[in-house]
Amino acid sequence: MVKPEASSSTIKAKALYSLLYERDGSPAQAQRGREAVQMLLDYLAAVQFAPGYNHPNEKGDIILASAMVYDWCFHLMSAQQRAYVVARFTQLAATMEIGFPPSRQGPVVGHGSDNQLLRDQLSAAIAFYDEAPLVYNIVAGRFFADYIAPRNYAYAAQAYHQGASYGTVRFLADMYAAWIFRRMGAAPVFDPVQQMTPYHWLYTRRPDGQWMRDGDVYHSSYTNSREYWSEPLAFMLPATYYNNPTLKHEYLKQSLQPSTSFIHPKDSIWPILLGNTAMGSTPSPAALPLTKYFPDPAGLMIARTGWTDGIHVESGNVVATMKLGGDWFGNHEHYDAGHFQIYYKGGLAIDSGIYSGRDVADPSIPLEYGSAHDMNYHKRSIAHNTMLVHDPDENFDGYANDGGQRFPGDEPSSVAELANGYKVATVLRQQQVGGAAGAPDFSYIKGDLTAAYSSKVRQFQRSFVFLNLKNTDHPAALIVFDKVSASDAGFKKTWLLHSQFEPQISGDTVLIQRTDWDYNSTLQYNGKLINRTLLPANALLAKVGGSGNEFSVGGTNYPIQPEADYSTEEAGAWRLEVSPPGGNETDVFLNVMQVMDASSTLPALPTTAIDSALLAGVKIQDRVVLFSKSGLPLGGTVTVELPAHSASMQVLVADLQAGSWKVSKRGTDGPIEDEVSDGGGTLYFVANGGGVYDLQRK
Amino acid sequence: MVKPEASSSTIKAKALYSLLYERDGSPAQAQRGREAVQMLLDYLAAVQFAPGYNHPNEKGDIILASAMVYDWCFHLMSAQQRAYVVARFTQLAATMEIGFPPSRQGPVVGHGSDNQLLRDQLSAAIAFYDEAPLVYNIVAGRFFADYIAPRNYAYAAQAYHQGASYGTVRFLADMYAAWIFRRMGAAPVFDPVQQMTPYHWLYTRRPDGQWMRDGDVYHSSYTNSREYWSEPLAFMLPATYYNNPTLKHEYLKQSLQPSTSFIHPKDSIWPILLGNTAMGSTPSPAALPLTKYFPDPAGLMIARTGWTDGIHVESGNVVATMKLGGDWFGNHEHYDAGHFQIYYKGGLAIDSGIYSGRDVADPSIPLEYGSAHDMNYHKRSIAHNTMLVHDPDENFDGYANDGGQRFPGDEPSSVAELANGYKVATVLRQQQVGGAAGAPDFSYIKGDLTAAYSSKVRQFQRSFVFLNLKNTDHPAALIVFDKVSASDAGFKKTWLLHSQFEPQISGDTVLIQRTDWDYNSTLQYNGKLINRTLLPANALLAKVGGSGNEFSVGGTNYPIQPEADYSTEEAGAWRLEVSPPGGNETDVFLNVMQVMDASSTLPALPTTAIDSALLAGVKIQDRVVLFSKSGLPLGGTVTVELPAHSASMQVLVADLQAGSWKVSKRGTDGPIEDEVSDGGGTLYFVANGGGVYDLQRK
Repeated sequence: MVKPEASSSTIKAKALYSLLYERDGSPAQAQRGREAVQMLLDYLAAVQFAPGYNHPNEKGDIILASAMVYDWCFHLMSAQQRAYVVARFTQLAATMEIGFPPSRQGPVVGHGSDNQLLRDQLSAAIAFYDEAPLVYNIVAGRFFADYIAPRNYAYAAQAYHQGASYGTVRFLADMYAAWIFRRMGAAPVFDPVQQMTPYHWLYTRRPDGQWMRDGDVYHSSYTNSREYWSEPLAFMLPATYYNNPTLKHEYLKQSLQPSTSFIHPKDSIWPILLGNTAMGSTPSPAALPLTKYFPDPAGLMIARTGWTDGIHVESGNVVATMKLGGDWFGNHEHYDAGHFQIYYKGGLAIDSGIYSGRDVADPSIPLEYGSAHDMNYHKRSIAHNTMLVHDPDENFDGYANDGGQRFPGDEPSSVAELANGYKVATVLRQQQVGGAAGAPDFSYIKGDLTAAYSSKVRQFQRSFVFLNLKNTDHPAALIVFDKVSASDAGFKKTWLLHSQFEPQISGDTVLIQRTDWDYNSTLQYNGKLINRTLLPANALLAKVGGSGNEFSVGGTNYPIQPEADYSTEEAGAWRLEVSPPGGNETDVFLNVMQVMDASSTLPALPTTAIDSALLAGVKIQDRVVLFSKSGLPLGGTVTVELPAHSASMQVLVADLQAGSWKVSKRGTDGPIEDEVSDGGGTLYFVANGGGVYDLQRK
Repeated sequence: MVKPEASSSTIKAKALYSLLYERDGSPAQAQRGREAVQMLLDYLAAVQFAPGYNHPNEKGDIILASAMVYDWCFHLMSAQQRAYVVARFTQLAATMEIGFPPSRQGPVVGHGSDNQLLRDQLSAAIAFYDEAPLVYNIVAGRFFADYIAPRNYAYAAQAYHQGASYGTVRFLADMYAAWIFRRMGAAPVFDPVQQMTPYHWLYTRRPDGQWMRDGDVYHSSYTNSREYWSEPLAFMLPATYYNNPTLKHEYLKQSLQPSTSFIHPKDSIWPILLGNTAMGSTPSPAALPLTKYFPDPAGLMIARTGWTDGIHVESGNVVATMKLGGDWFGNHEHYDAGHFQIYYKGGLAIDSGIYSGRDVADPSIPLEYGSAHDMNYHKRSIAHNTMLVHDPDENFDGYANDGGQRFPGDEPSSVAELANGYKVATVLRQQQVGGAAGAPDFSYIKGDLTAAYSSKVRQFQRSFVFLNLKNTDHPAALIVFDKVSASDAGFKKTWLLHSQFEPQISGDTVLIQRTDWDYNSTLQYNGKLINRTLLPANALLAKVGGSGNEFSVGGTNYPIQPEADYSTEEAGAWRLEVSPPGGNETDVFLNVMQVMDASSTLPALPTTAIDSALLAGVKIQDRVVLFSKSGLPLGGTVTVELPAHSASMQVLVADLQAGSWKVSKRGTDGPIEDEVSDGGGTLYFVANGGGVYDLQRK
């Protein structure tokens, strides 16, 4: 097989040169253009692929080159040459994975959402239109029939469901299609909220230049610790399409970073074709709010304590992802509804497993999509910081019973199919409270995750409150409040917290440190996370992991090793498992995590459990967060005793009914009044020291 | 525009020559083949059509030539040349009426049922398959999805719904498809009853070489009286496909006749490709039964008194068509459920109007499909020998209110759509009785035609009995018995009988003569028809027609004139209208027609009305035919007095319940016994002279 990309770059370059500089001369003088035509024809005549539906990218690249030559050197080709290019297109395209007509793959996820149709076949379709309109009618027909609805549906999330690596390239494919139609003079084919999708990756950017892991990630397999993870065109195309300076800034930032990326080589033709050197970019992303909610079908909140621009591993900025979930899109999305992660001077609460690695026993064997590690561990709930409820009789299509979330089905192929069992979580409440605009003190999100599980779970609701403590020594805390009911009291519930290194358990508290150096000593992580389990009472804390047990499910390890020594995999090797001491149908979990420098000699912030008739919560630093113990929104009068505190405290009471609420501290004058909205259901007030407080709904 | 057929014949011939004689030589020696390739390429490069979806036949011919050259001279073409042929195919085919993909027209009737897909695109699809399988997948995909079901559905009728002219060419298109798939090695794509379809045209062949008119007819517009109407390939292709010697005989007969046909020139390539000189043919069609029933969805019976082979205008053979109907297929089918025709030495009871003619005021204006004449008269019930029930408020989509049958809808596009309101008639009974095998004395068919009309008709049932009198002087009679109930007694009922020349009315009897000579004096018709109206009692007989009133509907004439002086149009100019004298909801009509030589000096056969409590009927010659006056099948004992007759009489009693019946003539010994079957519902017996007969169901 001729290696397509090497050949096609020259052809494209000659064709582009001819378009730019040879247009005014006679066809005979258009030497580069004629060379492009002849090279393309020779290439098309020579290129062969193994039988079958395969090599979508390589075939797509030939098709793209064909389209460019056909369009740019049209006047240099005979009718027979043009027809030959079209004929070879139909032959090559027919053997792409998606086929031609492009009907073999779905339009929602998977390779059908890659460039095959959205860029390559569409480019050819438009180039050939005058002579072979059927190609356009077929390709654009499928596009308009099937591709727009699931994209607009997903764009509403302002996030992408295919994870940190595939998300960017799949979104880039969408943007090629958007641009191609724009360049035809068509109205925008997608909802303009499309431009918010890359904000997902702005918010998940870690100070070390990597992305918070999400779904199947391969950037980690080929980057070293000095690299800024990138997919520049996924930012450039929306930047110029929507004239969005924030995205342009990120594009420029990525382009300027060194990159060893070999999977998605920079193709210098696109900035020429679709770039815009005239438009400005923001100086940095600092102007963005620190917390962003990504609505359904993502159901995600990301809270940060600051922005870095480029690689600044020493930065004290915290990044926390709080995923509840919405629709499960499959393919590169994991069974990870309810999953949270925390980064502070290193990945502390992490996403475990490796997408693209090697067999431990025989490193010549790649382990990728669908490997035993992937299917039994990496994609599964057990590899994430969410809840397990173990029904010993549950069957996961023959894969390991991790006690986690159900398999909604095959990859969905339409929005209609998504509606049929793919909803795994519903956001019930979300609110940002306190602090200056864009820098909330409390970032709150609560959802119902029952649908993520089989009937073994009667109800599972999880609440996250991220506290930006605005304290350099103690920058942030994350409170996780869970109420879980199993359909059988005997089904063990396990609250998970994954870490790269071995956690240290002490009573109800666990310490996770991250102080590793990278292989070339330019990077030193220096973070630690302290979690205290306040509920359930007398919880059992256990750690699982270590050598030969890193990716264990029910006692069976599913090993994998990184692709390369220098890689930036953050696969984890340990997990904390928190379970109730006895068998109850319903349990409540309250865990409070705080982060600080690993090297700090300061004690962790004390955490004080608060327990009243209706409310459970915690005081940390000058913050109090309270939840309804029943999970139900409270009305009437709710009384709670706040612990002593020498100064005022910021109090967030979640799970309240909407309306006007009056807050009175017993033994003091004048009540505090506040409104509780439907959307948030939280009451926020500043308490003047400890004591008994009555919260009264008017 | 280059005239395609002239050019393409040479190309095809060279390609065929190359296939036959140049295969063994080197490509360089294949001179004719290389000429064919170059001529085709030149032709494809030069040919142009006016914009729009048009010229399906001319484009189809180019495509067919392309397919032949591509297939037969494949080794003489470069990959680019082949691709160019495919490209031009897609371009030309896209502008055919049916388009490419062939989705613009329906698969049941109309131009979508012509050669566009079934021959031309399919030929190209197969020729191009290795290099451009999509063409085949698209064309054959549509074929298998949409084309087979409506054809097999219609083939069950052993007749074709698109009339005498279009029927043959549309059926020929079916046969091209059948042959193409057979030559691919596929199993038969259609139900083998397909081969019976051309029997429709065997049975409608008149001794003068023309076909009994049916639907839109154009053969009459360009033939003279010495021509044998023909569509030879519509007989050759099924003859060789099914190895059917009767059809081969008819093919040979047609091929040997002189023909001035310019619409469907003989294409000498098809007998070479699909002919079979080795197979035999029957010496003549004489072996076929004289009466044939064409079941649903045709609901047609054709009765003859003999077979002629070729043009024998002097022949005494009678041909009578008795159409009840089934599904109305539209396009070239008329609103003619219940229509009958009689030919004897000339068209006597005829089908009126002209399909393809000229404007009377300005003969430069062609009047064809959709003309005022066509839409208000020619296609309508009033132009046929059926029943009108005139609701003065009925609206026929703005066309003239002829009192006739409803418009079921647009051209049906599937079998499913046919089921939705296109059923206009149901055959209730049919039977052939008496006489030697294949030469029945009585040919009987009865149906319910209520569905052909709007709600103005409560019920309309028509019975036909054709009597082969086996008498040279009086060869045949046709009895028509109708029971019609209108939803309003005020709606006038009119029984119609169309004639070419002015009828002569005398009391309850009308005489229609046909003695015209054709323009070159080689033809002389010599028939006459005498009809006597026995019911309703005191019926009003009126004639409508004559100069300036030939095609009158409600007092408005819709004139047309034949395409040419020499044409064989039999448009009619007069009609007999028979109506009840008063306004009754329900009326019964009994009309008895007999035919004889116009030049005969013999009196017509006397007809004797028979009327008993339950039965009404007629005696003619030695035949008695009786119907249930109520229309309901009779059981129990039915008594009827038969008129005096000096010898035995053959008696057919219709409308009886199935079972064993006993027939006794009062005052005589031993009863006659017979079985009445469910399918026929008739009792047949030989009566020994007149008298009172008791028919008793056991």
